[in-house]
Amino acid sequence: MKYLSILFIFAPIAILGELLHWPAVVVFIASALAVIPAAGLMGRSTEALAAHTGPRLGGLLNATLGNAAELIITLFAIRAGLLDLVKASITGSIIGNVLLVMGMSVLLGGLKNGVQRFDRTQAGVNATQLLLAVAALMIPSLFFFAHTETNGPVESLSLGTAVAMLVIYVLGLLFSFRFASPEPALGIEVEAEEHSTWSTRTALLVLLGATVLIAILSEVLVGAVEETVQMLGISEFFIGIIVVPLVGNVAEHAVAVQTAFKNKIELSMAVSLGSSLQIALFVAPLLVFISLLMGNPLTLVFNQFEIVALFVGVLIAAFVAQDGETNWLEGAQLLTVYAIVALAFFFVPV
Amino acid sequence: MKYLSILFIFAPIAILGELLHWPAVVVFIASALAVIPAAGLMGRSTEALAAHTGPRLGGLLNATLGNAAELIITLFAIRAGLLDLVKASITGSIIGNVLLVMGMSVLLGGLKNGVQRFDRTQAGVNATQLLLAVAALMIPSLFFFAHTETNGPVESLSLGTAVAMLVIYVLGLLFSFRFASPEPALGIEVEAEEHSTWSTRTALLVLLGATVLIAILSEVLVGAVEETVQMLGISEFFIGIIVVPLVGNVAEHAVAVQTAFKNKIELSMAVSLGSSLQIALFVAPLLVFISLLMGNPLTLVFNQFEIVALFVGVLIAAFVAQDGETNWLEGAQLLTVYAIVALAFFFVPV
Amino acid sequence: MKYLSILFIFAPIAILGELLHWPAVVVFIASALAVIPAAGLMGRSTEALAAHTGPRLGGLLNATLGNAAELIITLFAIRAGLLDLVKASITGSIIGNVLLVMGMSVLLGGLKNGVQRFDRTQAGVNATQLLLAVAALMIPSLFFFAHTETNGPVESLSLGTAVAMLVIYVLGLLFSFRFASPEPALGIEVEAEEHSTWSTRTALLVLLGATVLIAILSEVLVGAVEETVQMLGISEFFIGIIVVPLVGNVAEHAVAVQTAFKNKIELSMAVSLGSSLQIALFVAPLLVFISLLMGNPLTLVFNQFEIVALFVGVLIAAFVAQDGETNWLEGAQLLTVYAIVALAFFFVPV
Repeated sequence: MKYLSILFIFAPIAILGELLHWPAVVVFIASALAVIPAAGLMGRSTEALAAHTGPRLGGLLNATLGNAAELIITLFAIRAGLLDLVKASITGSIIGNVLLVMGMSVLLGGLKNGVQRFDRTQAGVNATQLLLAVAALMIPSLFFFAHTETNGPVESLSLGTAVAMLVIYVLGLLFSFRFASPEPALGIEVEAEEHSTWSTRTALLVLLGATVLIAILSEVLVGAVEETVQMLGISEFFIGIIVVPLVGNVAEHAVAVQTAFKNKIELSMAVSLGSSLQIALFVAPLLVFISLLMGNPLTLVFNQFEIVALFVGVLIAAFVAQDGETNWLEGAQLLTVYAIVALAFFFVPV
Repeated sequence: MKYLSILFIFAPIAILGELLHWPAVVVFIASALAVIPAAGLMGRSTEALAAHTGPRLGGLLNATLGNAAELIITLFAIRAGLLDLVKASITGSIIGNVLLVMGMSVLLGGLKNGVQRFDRTQAGVNATQLLLAVAALMIPSLFFFAHTETNGPVESLSLGTAVAMLVIYVLGLLFSFRFASPEPALGIEVEAEEHSTWSTRTALLVLLGATVLIAILSEVLVGAVEETVQMLGISEFFIGIIVVPLVGNVAEHAVAVQTAFKNKIELSMAVSLGSSLQIALFVAPLLVFISLLMGNPLTLVFNQFEIVALFVGVLIAAFVAQDGETNWLEGAQLLTVYAIVALAFFFVPV
Repeated sequence: MKYLSILFIFAPIAILGELLHWPAVVVFIASALAVIPAAGLMGRSTEALAAHTGPRLGGLLNATLGNAAELIITLFAIRAGLLDLVKASITGSIIGNVLLVMGMSVLLGGLKNGVQRFDRTQAGVNATQLLLAVAALMIPSLFFFAHTETNGPVESLSLGTAVAMLVIYVLGLLFSFRFASPEPALGIEVEAEEHSTWSTRTALLVLLGATVLIAILSEVLVGAVEETVQMLGISEFFIGIIVVPLVGNVAEHAVAVQTAFKNKIELSMAVSLGSSLQIALFVAPLLVFISLLMGNPLTLVFNQFEIVALFVGVLIAAFVAQDGETNWLEGAQLLTVYAIVALAFFFVPV
């Protein structure tokens, strides 16, 4: 975490570059790098707040603000009309969490600690929840493929699906709070002790500051996307599916991997599965509603590739999570699937 | 069960409406409502017969007559050439059982009784059997999508698949009879004690009467479908996938939910999984053969949507069933998937 | 095994037929039948060698030469430009192993020995590995379907995927060698005792002789394919997906079934799952590289049908393998899926 702070020097570079009209690639890379520590700070302040408010409200804070950085970036992208990038970043966040983060955690945790065991109940609930989320994301898309002629029903269907997703997300939180072990199941309070030195006031100020900074950086980042895409010859889709999710979650990813390394695989999987659930069942439907209010309605229509990647990724993760134990080979398997998927995304024509 | 009897008053209304040429919607709704208690009566008489014949023959009776009401309705629909409605009602019955009925059972049973545990062996066998059934239903459809030019092979493939399905259905029954616990695994003898007051003679007469009544109501119902579809602006497909399965199985559904509420989740899941297996591996192939004899050959070609709904529904149900325990959240998850699927079906263009 | 030796009389018939220009069907059938005992001999000599070299090197020998017969046939097919046949034989080998061989083993083993139990850990690892392999095989195909206009990226993507597959195959071998029980997990040393009478020298000579014989027979077989296809009215695809995998693996299949019959279901499943893993993660990528060197680049683009068959077959096998016990019904289920898939393949237009 500390080492990431050095990336803050890219914040003034990004803003300066934007004002002085530096090449878009430079502005893009600088703002992307600067988002990393800002998102990390946002996560830490959320946890510090959660430590002060008690487990219930704290869990709720983590459940709603855990992916706030990515939410802010995608809101700016919606305003700029980059809907494909927004949808790609939803897909990328989910598979990034279940394949890359979980894969790295299971691989390193397994190499260090041998076979790691955990309670199957919560992991099973999360895996089913994730499978449901993917099903919910698939259905409007498949509807669209089968009946492309009409756009109206797809929007209504997306809205209805979004409502259903939010309902089951809230029920899932209720279930975790009431039935789960004292350890948090969906939130990220791993390093709570270290942060509890921050007072509520400090935490709120840091949260506010980080939010403003991310908003500014998002505006800069999104503004530089189109030109960057043209210059580098990579697709907007690739930026959405690989770059945005990485940038918004590096700090969180680091926590998940460290936790697995410390032989707390259960907590590590709660972080990675929980974060992807939050994106799928909370952020995605929220974006549907907000985008409608912003006049740029986002439908839950993903391309065939995203659907296959989501389905395959979640299915394999569910298989790994379900038997209650992990080993390094399973981590390597998850990473292999991620590598193949990322390679395929890279080759998608611009 | 008793409360459903009141719906019998719709039987004369439906028949009268048909004779006096009332609006099709009225006739359709009245006949649909009247089928509910008639199907329930049919189920009760089958169970009463089964109670007299001993477990083996009784299990066989349940295994063949358990979905007789729906079989009758679909036969009339085949005669009227409504093949899409027939196929939709097969899909709808399967996902209705594994998502709606099982979901409601697991949700209410879990809220009342907390975590409910059951023996994994039979549930695992049923889940694999169901996955196999869905694979069998998918393969001719995918064949058709890939090679639309020729119709002949699809019919032959449907027939061959139907034979394979019947064989594995019979083997599944044999397995259940020989290896399962004394409690019925595929049949519905839940309330056998209450019904055993009916003599064989009474049961046979009731069975005959209910069959005749359902036949008449089916004729009326099917005759009113097309006009109803036009007047209400909903699709024939929606009627097939949501309305027909509901109407033919309300009584059975009520039994499954009550059983879960009484903390007999194993029996409840045997009812819902068993009923969907019966539709998939017994009723569907039977319809293929009978439709051929009737000159309106039904192929096992489902639309993309039905296939996705079947696959996703059965996969999630298999995940829920497989770990040997259920909780209310899993019930809510199944119902959420059903709601999203039903919503999508509702928006399918007329 | 011994009874298969009689098929050697078809070797001279095939070669004679080729030289004397007998009808292609005769040459095709004779060479196909003669491959069976030659492949069996190759397997025995590999195992005899492995018995002399110690478990590590022996495991490696089995892991690389276990499907050598099929590798040789497909190399000749690549040289002849029959790329569809090659890809079909990869698909056919995988589903043949997980559905036909595993199905037969589980069915006969279950009928003889009742419920058979085994350690879930290695079976679970193999099942996840297989799911990963299928995902890896699917992704380039789906990429191709979505972006048919460009061929270049698909080749690059196939190469990248092939590298990833080989890496995870080697990691999987390492995992098995280090963590597995003393019994072989991926190889086929079942009858090692019987063969240990062969000296290293004899084994090497037999291996060399069998390889040369298979190479000659493969040339004859591949040369007769096109004419046979036209005469019999079956598709090249059907020969690739059903005939080639059967011919190359009969001996191995017999071992797997015998082992299950002797109540060693764990070893039997290691053989069938291990062999399909070897095809998917070792033979398939190897063919991608070799075909590129031969100037007839093979891409990992399978048709929709193969993908569905692979996915459904592996998913059902994973469900069967995962709970750590098998019964005869599960065997019948696997065989039923194989029968339906084979029927569908049979009807694919020439």
